Amino acid sequence: MKTAQEKLKSNYEENKHICVGLDPDKLKIPSSLLTSDDPVFQFNKEIIDATKDLALGYKLNFAFFESEGIKGIETLYKTIEYIGDNHFIIGDAKRGDIGNTAEKYAHSLFNEFKVDASTLHPYMGFDSIEPFLNYHEKLNFILVLTSNPGAADFEKVRISNDKFLYQEVLTKVLSWNKHKNLGIVFGATQISELEGNVSSFEGLPVLLPGVGAQGGSLEDVVRLFIKYKNNNFIINSSRGIIYKSNGNDFAEQARIELSKLNQAVAENKI
Amino acid sequence: MKTAQEKLKSNYEENKHICVGLDPDKLKIPSSLLTSDDPVFQFNKEIIDATKDLALGYKLNFAFFESEGIKGIETLYKTIEYIGDNHFIIGDAKRGDIGNTAEKYAHSLFNEFKVDASTLHPYMGFDSIEPFLNYHEKLNFILVLTSNPGAADFEKVRISNDKFLYQEVLTKVLSWNKHKNLGIVFGATQISELEGNVSSFEGLPVLLPGVGAQGGSLEDVVRLFIKYKNNNFIINSSRGIIYKSNGNDFAEQARIELSKLNQAVAENKI
Repeated sequence: MKTAQEKLKSNYEENKHICVGLDPDKLKIPSSLLTSDDPVFQFNKEIIDATKDLALGYKLNFAFFESEGIKGIETLYKTIEYIGDNHFIIGDAKRGDIGNTAEKYAHSLFNEFKVDASTLHPYMGFDSIEPFLNYHEKLNFILVLTSNPGAADFEKVRISNDKFLYQEVLTKVLSWNKHKNLGIVFGATQISELEGNVSSFEGLPVLLPGVGAQGGSLEDVVRLFIKYKNNNFIINSSRGIIYKSNGNDFAEQARIELSKLNQAVAENKI
Repeated sequence: MKTAQEKLKSNYEENKHICVGLDPDKLKIPSSLLTSDDPVFQFNKEIIDATKDLALGYKLNFAFFESEGIKGIETLYKTIEYIGDNHFIIGDAKRGDIGNTAEKYAHSLFNEFKVDASTLHPYMGFDSIEPFLNYHEKLNFILVLTSNPGAADFEKVRISNDKFLYQEVLTKVLSWNKHKNLGIVFGATQISELEGNVSSFEGLPVLLPGVGAQGGSLEDVVRLFIKYKNNNFIINSSRGIIYKSNGNDFAEQARIELSKLNQAVAENKI
């Protein structure tokens, strides 16, 4: 089986940078699916079938599964299994806790759910990240600057004349990256901050949520990375792809939308 | 059914301030339980039976359940149901994500797991907390200053001459507390910071992890709150209670340890 790092590399070689975010909401999926035994799995399955040759991978938003109780967790396991070993899978659970607890979360994500990558909160510091670093063939995306309005509350707090908190997180992530299994989350909506910091990323894979529904521009992001000769970026789109159509053509429309995004990446990489 | 706020009040009236932390680890529970259908549930059940008349409530550390896969989540649901409506239950899941995702996490914790309280990361700011605020009869403990060494990495970063990041989080939590359903997490290991800030807590319930295994002193914490005429505190002990004995007398020893902690609270409240 390929490591997370190898999976990313192969994807980049094929010019694949778009990750499909699976945030499946029972209230938003086509009503024709509701007669299925497991409508959410059916929805995911059709999206995966329609996009798997075009996508870099899938980001599973754990909240949308956990909110459906045990049944939802079963759907999450089934979905990960259905995607299979050949795709890059991000377990977007945004965990973060003290050492002995973080160990359990890491075990849950990497050995139980068997995802390739986690997303983690930095707030509690090094020992909340450390147990994840012991998985050398996995990747851990630490929240640096997120795509939401609340990023202004703490992430953008100034901690010195020339540094904001999110930049201190970036500095620490770089210093913790002995095993090359760390990455960062940087909101695609934060384009000027992205431009101001991209030269400091030093080979960290960057997960960029926030294009589409949240207002970030894919074109701006791609142009910026290319300008700085950095190919190590993953653009996530969730609602923009999976809910492109709310009719029975949702999977076909998801594929068309993903093709357009791939096209836009290709055009702006020149 | 009582609200989270009412449950806390009744507990305080009975001088109950100790929350039993359920971090059940299959590798640490007595081997005699391993023949049971669900050893972890059996362990929790015996701990609960032995402590329920003495405890303020229970804090369930989600990581320890999630790390056992679907079976672990089933145990978590069963444990919450077994504790029942009369005790204060904290779903210690330390979630934190953008608005539409936070809505799902809040639904999961309060409507599916049916806990009284959550623990939340502040890093992503207001919109990651807001959906939880709509549950007026629940409580949400925001991480302010945690008990672990990593607290020094970001939480204790200075953001101005007279303010650290964790104090900015405290300030914001107070400003967001329109519905009186916010509380804070403050590590019992951080006693000098606790002394420096307790006068600013303004009636926020304070969850204090870190006594026992992590090195915090229960006596120091209680004396401090009483000195500042603040009765709104919850001291959590996990390993110190549930693993007091690793023999077949684990439940009995947990009860004895909890009694001692209650006694220590009572003596230091005078």
